Amino acid sequence: MDAAEFRRRGKEMVDYIADYMETIERRQVYPDVQPGYLRPLIPEEAPEAPETYEDVVKDIERVIMPGVTHWHSPYFYAYFPTANSYPAMLADMLSGAIGCIGFSWAASPACTELETVMLDWLGKMLKLPQEFIAGTSGKGGGGHTGGTASEATLVALLAARSRKVKQIRSEEPDLSEAQVISRLVAYASDQAHSSVERAGLIGGMRMRKIPTDEKFAVRGEALRRAIEEDKAAGLIPFYFCATLGTTPSCAFDRITELGPVCNAEKLWMHIDAAYAGSSFICPEFRPLLDGVEFADSFNFNPHKWLLVNFDCSTMWVKKRSDIIGHWQIPLGRRFRSLKMWFVFRLYGVRGLQAYIRQHVKLAKEFEGLVRKDGRFEISADVVLGLVCFRLKGSNDVNETLLKRINAARRIHLVPCQLAGRFVLRFAVCARTTESRHVQQAWQHIAELASEVLQSSQRCLALVGPAHPKPSGLGSGPVTVEVRSPLFVKYRTPHLFIHSFDAFSENLPT
Amino acid sequence: MDAAEFRRRGKEMVDYIADYMETIERRQVYPDVQPGYLRPLIPEEAPEAPETYEDVVKDIERVIMPGVTHWHSPYFYAYFPTANSYPAMLADMLSGAIGCIGFSWAASPACTELETVMLDWLGKMLKLPQEFIAGTSGKGGGGHTGGTASEATLVALLAARSRKVKQIRSEEPDLSEAQVISRLVAYASDQAHSSVERAGLIGGMRMRKIPTDEKFAVRGEALRRAIEEDKAAGLIPFYFCATLGTTPSCAFDRITELGPVCNAEKLWMHIDAAYAGSSFICPEFRPLLDGVEFADSFNFNPHKWLLVNFDCSTMWVKKRSDIIGHWQIPLGRRFRSLKMWFVFRLYGVRGLQAYIRQHVKLAKEFEGLVRKDGRFEISADVVLGLVCFRLKGSNDVNETLLKRINAARRIHLVPCQLAGRFVLRFAVCARTTESRHVQQAWQHIAELASEVLQSSQRCLALVGPAHPKPSGLGSGPVTVEVRSPLFVKYRTPHLFIHSFDAFSENLPT
Repeated sequence: MDAAEFRRRGKEMVDYIADYMETIERRQVYPDVQPGYLRPLIPEEAPEAPETYEDVVKDIERVIMPGVTHWHSPYFYAYFPTANSYPAMLADMLSGAIGCIGFSWAASPACTELETVMLDWLGKMLKLPQEFIAGTSGKGGGGHTGGTASEATLVALLAARSRKVKQIRSEEPDLSEAQVISRLVAYASDQAHSSVERAGLIGGMRMRKIPTDEKFAVRGEALRRAIEEDKAAGLIPFYFCATLGTTPSCAFDRITELGPVCNAEKLWMHIDAAYAGSSFICPEFRPLLDGVEFADSFNFNPHKWLLVNFDCSTMWVKKRSDIIGHWQIPLGRRFRSLKMWFVFRLYGVRGLQAYIRQHVKLAKEFEGLVRKDGRFEISADVVLGLVCFRLKGSNDVNETLLKRINAARRIHLVPCQLAGRFVLRFAVCARTTESRHVQQAWQHIAELASEVLQSSQRCLALVGPAHPKPSGLGSGPVTVEVRSPLFVKYRTPHLFIHSFDAFSENLPT
Repeated sequence: MDAAEFRRRGKEMVDYIADYMETIERRQVYPDVQPGYLRPLIPEEAPEAPETYEDVVKDIERVIMPGVTHWHSPYFYAYFPTANSYPAMLADMLSGAIGCIGFSWAASPACTELETVMLDWLGKMLKLPQEFIAGTSGKGGGGHTGGTASEATLVALLAARSRKVKQIRSEEPDLSEAQVISRLVAYASDQAHSSVERAGLIGGMRMRKIPTDEKFAVRGEALRRAIEEDKAAGLIPFYFCATLGTTPSCAFDRITELGPVCNAEKLWMHIDAAYAGSSFICPEFRPLLDGVEFADSFNFNPHKWLLVNFDCSTMWVKKRSDIIGHWQIPLGRRFRSLKMWFVFRLYGVRGLQAYIRQHVKLAKEFEGLVRKDGRFEISADVVLGLVCFRLKGSNDVNETLLKRINAARRIHLVPCQLAGRFVLRFAVCARTTESRHVQQAWQHIAELASEVLQSSQRCLALVGPAHPKPSGLGSGPVTVEVRSPLFVKYRTPHLFIHSFDAFSENLPT
């Protein structure tokens, strides 16, 4: 393909993308396909000779689209949002064309420098303490981008390990590094994302889960107690990963209590605000970040809720010297900061704030609808764009409801476990979601709930109280202790971990 | 920005990209800017109100392009190539629009399934042993994509650690996991990429470097000796990372010798062929991969030399069960396989082979030019698209030559250290490099060499044999032992590791 053909095909692709976005709500949000659907649709080997572009492009609708879960459909309420905006797409096209690999200043100065300045812009939007802003001094703190929050959690943990090993060995020079590491213990919420525990596994260190309160938040006292127990047992506490906006319920660890504990005990405090972080650009949500001044590092994903297409995970540290020379897992990366630059300028801070507020408003609207229906209950405080709700009643009936919702394919939700209960999560996700979509979604859920409750009552009437479990999705909440509170029930060893979380009846076997 | 404006701006961007590609050789390959150039060119904070697209787009040439190192210029011969093709860019636009996060089958079945099939296509193009191909059985081996080879190295190391811990503890149930881990030792070439050593640091395990032979290759006997020594010292060898196509000189570890050693000693053998892997689609280069049948895992980067834009690093394992549940570092990822699908179909296997062969031919052409000039020597076998060469003479004179080359800005090269010698690397990188560019580059290098040799002789004449070291790039080869053989001398703690490798006189301080 030469430049002339690219001009033509690129413009066709721009139109295809615009068409896709403009008509996405006409597509079924969750696909009908069964595992293994794709392989028979295409040849078993790559072609020897080039095919035509027409051959390829017609396969987008034949092969790809039937198997796409449309994350940007206004009927998609699953997981958390992933960002998608026209400015970010334009910037990403440019990033692909420049195609530099940003592993060093010399490898592309603009790439390194724009990133540093964009992290300052964003840090100021979040009103981060001055220590996290790079500025011109080249000393102290600053930010950089990575691919995902999982990487940031790991990077922070490894930096914390180095710092603690150095500290302990300066106090007790006879101890070997391995001896110190074997006594280290890290902490995180029992609601933390699976990647936090995985970071500990990767680093080969203990990771202790701190029990949360009735709001699913870690409190200072709970952490203090764990630290004291572990110190008494000869361990060395070194790292706490606080979560602001947990995956199951968007709960907020109490960092104003936790920060002083970490500082006094010389633990590295990392804050993971993967989803919620974007909201802190709004003054009314910024208090949720109060306590960040105690943290050593802070991370969130603009690629979730700040209209910057995946991937763009931003991390700040107070002392660059704690990180330098360490632990960026991938060396290369795209020119990601172009996406931030385009999005911040073409929306402006006010436009981004309006976007966040619109999602929160829609979540509140949905919460109001749930609360008005006496059959349902709200399972966790609705703070941002996530509503956790359930039918008053058994886990089984809620599992059945979720199964019906996803089987109907009109909207798409995923569940979570909260305090042993099966809970439905309604996350406002798409940029184009409006009140009418939320109203339709609720009406649909309420109707399916009526069907489920009726058939549940028929079942009770037939077999009495000890009725057999309705055919549900799995074997109940027995697997709660598996790592990810969100996906635990549907995990299956398909190929790699990212291929596991097959949902509802489409489980690969 | 609405869909209508995106249609207009997207098409303008397509034209901008095509213009950029068509005229790239008129741009200076390496920028003139000094560290810190960008910050004063843009505001200190994000705008409150949206700016216009015109405002943003005019800043591409004002702010960005003056600081870009043009990796796709035919005058770029630094590092290794990074891929850039029109079909990949088109697919990536589509990937951005679909914007699914491929962490599970359900999150987007097409994303997971196309990836599995594309890895089979590519595995067959490489003639990988059947055990690495997923096929339809869902058992045994298969491939997946990650972001970089660094991740693959780490994933393999962690899987190897798990496997060995399990094996040892089944033999000696009294040992704790920590006790086993503290005795583990991994191996890699002394020419291996810095990320290999870093993987060991991250996992908290010993990594021993195996000395290479006169071809910069690890031999079976050298590995066997290290294993025996370490076993005698009570350690547990568990992992060997072989490199096919090392970063400094594109050397090939002798995996036909090493594989049987690893298999007999129950070491996990991982093969990192980040750059060279793409060439194995050509029958004449496939013998370089002979011995892969002994490996547990194999990785290379189509985003380097197979026309699939960054990022796309492909990894195969013989037993998925060794990896399942473990160690994918980032959970989310883009719909990367679309890029492979477009590229494989629009080039065809023959088109991709022709592309590889063209680069190798150009490297051979350059090698021929060097060999014809008696002032120069070739420093390592030219097998693929990299030529390592130097002036016969001191490291200082070669450092001065490289400095002159990069200061002239007409072409861009980086150096390496080989057996204590300062060596220039000439890597054929851009898709559009032709014979005329290579000829021009050589003519330019030869002219600068004449200047350098003349001034060096003048210097000698003035001060005699014990002349002071010419003002060079650094303090000589004293820092050879630092991790990356390629970038070691220019590393400086600017911000994060990816921001360090500022080159030549543009060192941030």
